[in-house]
Amino acid sequence: MADTEGIAAWLRRGTLEYCVLALLARGTRYGVELVRDLAADPALTATEGTLYPLLSRLRRTGWVETTWRESPTGPPRRYYSLTEDGKRALDRFRHEWVAFRDAVDRVMGIDSR
Amino acid sequence: MADTEGIAAWLRRGTLEYCVLALLARGTRYGVELVRDLAADPALTATEGTLYPLLSRLRRTGWVETTWRESPTGPPRRYYSLTEDGKRALDRFRHEWVAFRDAVDRVMGIDSR
Repeated sequence: MADTEGIAAWLRRGTLEYCVLALLARGTRYGVELVRDLAADPALTATEGTLYPLLSRLRRTGWVETTWRESPTGPPRRYYSLTEDGKRALDRFRHEWVAFRDAVDRVMGIDSR
Repeated sequence: MADTEGIAAWLRRGTLEYCVLALLARGTRYGVELVRDLAADPALTATEGTLYPLLSRLRRTGWVETTWRESPTGPPRRYYSLTEDGKRALDRFRHEWVAFRDAVDRVMGIDSR
């Protein structure tokens, strides 16, 4: 049985790809920006070692597409943006998430925030 | 990559044991009562085939203990109740859950219910 640390990591692992889609829904980003945005929240924090394989998977799935752009300060950067399929996947997840979250809150006896 | 059905099932799998602990925190129950309480919520619904192995695991972990009681209508029933360790595990999960849930809500742009 996983301890609480394990549970938090496990929940994070299952939702991280959708959190990345949600960040990209706000606008195109490059990898380092995504790591920084995710690191801003201790409950979601992801290392580059986790994020880059995840971005590759999202690209193969067709939920994310990439373009190279010049950088003002160094080598070109690979920018990630959401595809139409990615937007649909995010909408489905959002819907499922709210239902699941509310169900867990109800069982846990957590009424509101 | 898991589809949305997969994601919902996956989230459920990781939290189900804590949902069972939360139900037992409200009072001692026997297996059929737990299945019925969980089935009341479509986002959490668990079959007996899922629940009984989970209850055995919780018992081996020492989070749940059992007693046999006479039933008015048939064979004796095995009742499950929370141990002190189980209460602590539930408290830890509740704490982690709120932090995780709020983080996902923030990234998803879901402010309140």
